[in-house]
Amino acid sequence: MNGVLSDLGERKIIQLVRAQYGYGWPDDDAAYIDIGKEYLLITTDSISQSAHMPKGARWESVGYFFAALNLSDIAAMGGKPEYLITAFTLPRKMRIDDLKRLEVGMKRCLEKYGVKLFGGDTKEGMEINLTGVAIGTVAKKNILRRDGVRKGDVVCVTGSLGKNGAGYYMWKKTGLRRWAELLLDIEPRIDEGVLIAKSGATAAIDLSDGLFSAILQLSKINRCGFEIDYPKVPIHYAAKSAGISTGVNVEDIALNFGGDYELLFTIQKSKLNHLLSEAKKNGIRVSVIGKVAGRKCMLVKDGKKVGIRKAGYEHFR
Amino acid sequence: MNGVLSDLGERKIIQLVRAQYGYGWPDDDAAYIDIGKEYLLITTDSISQSAHMPKGARWESVGYFFAALNLSDIAAMGGKPEYLITAFTLPRKMRIDDLKRLEVGMKRCLEKYGVKLFGGDTKEGMEINLTGVAIGTVAKKNILRRDGVRKGDVVCVTGSLGKNGAGYYMWKKTGLRRWAELLLDIEPRIDEGVLIAKSGATAAIDLSDGLFSAILQLSKINRCGFEIDYPKVPIHYAAKSAGISTGVNVEDIALNFGGDYELLFTIQKSKLNHLLSEAKKNGIRVSVIGKVAGRKCMLVKDGKKVGIRKAGYEHFR
Repeated sequence: MNGVLSDLGERKIIQLVRAQYGYGWPDDDAAYIDIGKEYLLITTDSISQSAHMPKGARWESVGYFFAALNLSDIAAMGGKPEYLITAFTLPRKMRIDDLKRLEVGMKRCLEKYGVKLFGGDTKEGMEINLTGVAIGTVAKKNILRRDGVRKGDVVCVTGSLGKNGAGYYMWKKTGLRRWAELLLDIEPRIDEGVLIAKSGATAAIDLSDGLFSAILQLSKINRCGFEIDYPKVPIHYAAKSAGISTGVNVEDIALNFGGDYELLFTIQKSKLNHLLSEAKKNGIRVSVIGKVAGRKCMLVKDGKKVGIRKAGYEHFR
Repeated sequence: MNGVLSDLGERKIIQLVRAQYGYGWPDDDAAYIDIGKEYLLITTDSISQSAHMPKGARWESVGYFFAALNLSDIAAMGGKPEYLITAFTLPRKMRIDDLKRLEVGMKRCLEKYGVKLFGGDTKEGMEINLTGVAIGTVAKKNILRRDGVRKGDVVCVTGSLGKNGAGYYMWKKTGLRRWAELLLDIEPRIDEGVLIAKSGATAAIDLSDGLFSAILQLSKINRCGFEIDYPKVPIHYAAKSAGISTGVNVEDIALNFGGDYELLFTIQKSKLNHLLSEAKKNGIRVSVIGKVAGRKCMLVKDGKKVGIRKAGYEHFR
């Protein structure tokens, strides 16, 4: 192959890399290691200036976003994050104040979720690149993986979808700080993940790449189909108004773009009511949006079934 | 502060970040977590194209170097590396073939040392940035930290110093591939680290930033001085010939530049002979180069003591 990476797209690049090793690795949000009673969860995520730091956003918000997205992968496994290790590549001309403010935001997120910073590596490079390693634990019986979906499961999401996509499209249109800030405004769904795991969810994934992408990934890993009931999907009001302002399809903003970091999970029907009442008690919003059905991924809208095809935001495309 | 990062230098940047958290973290090459009988070691290291990938070097060599430098931090703790997780930021115009060759080199190193690749994250950015997370284990009693130096210890290094510095200065002068390759030519000293740890070494550190930098770091952490006997420091022949070709001081090439990834360690005198004979049996080169002495770091050369001041290669300067 003589092409460049943009000819392939992110998922094909990962496939290419995997193929060379002759063995797979878990399809999950985090790697896990048996340490006796628990699994230790280890995950890594990077952001770089050109791809993930919209111009105009506050450095504090970039720092908070960076920490939150790293913790999110632990949340998606049902775990409790304990440590974050960082590897920063920074340009020599970065302002000291900006780095300080980035750290302030990062610290705010880590303290909110009781996570300790565990040092890290600092190197010089042409553009800002922040890599985190989040480390957490989960009781063995509670681990949430991507491959546990069973026949008869229903599909649920936490929170609502489209706020971050709205931020992105509005920022692209206006360049205003408030939209850059909205794009970065995420929380790791840690309490949610723990509750979901304890309630017997069969599989979970975070929505970093959007609902459609997550559904397609679960479908591939579990070799099953899904039926998502569009009217039941909780769409954030910002996505609706951004749709009107920008002319972009609300579906694209809320279900395709991603960036929400809510959790999508599957659970047996028999366990659903208990989960919903526990969620309510804890002030956690959970919506049932569909079910495991057939062999394809379908969106049910206006009484019609449409195949879910388009993936969410994919790098390199 | 209104300055930019290059006004500070790497170590001051790390200090600034630490100060904000109000708690320290270990000064070691890796973080460690108690998992019962053993410690789990977790470490992260990044390289970026502009700072660490000399033009002309083979992509396979870059991949091998990347894997080796991540495993090196586990070696410096006396541990056995088990997994590597990767987070790659890649530009969309990178050639697919180049990524494949990078993976080939990385795989070669991981297979050589029995380390499994554990997936990772792939993102898009302006320049190539490769971050690794190495995970390993070490028996609790064998962990090598940076803070265990004791009075009466002698100072030793594995291998010889200056090969990579020679590659750097020769590459800078000539731009030839062979020197770029020499700069990247490192091995993680895993067997060495395990042997050193079992033999009762009191502290260890890898020489990524050069001997002088390592000595100064150990001095600061342990609040003690060192006396390094220059004629006993094993200098690689390439450093000597690069000194002649480039006019750069051999000391700068071999002791200041770094990039060797050999291990520097301290050990009680009473345990030295046993260690040296075990090293010999295992084909491991160990040189005794000095001792813990006084409160300052001195280099003894031509019968004179000179203060060790200059740090090794430091980013952002």
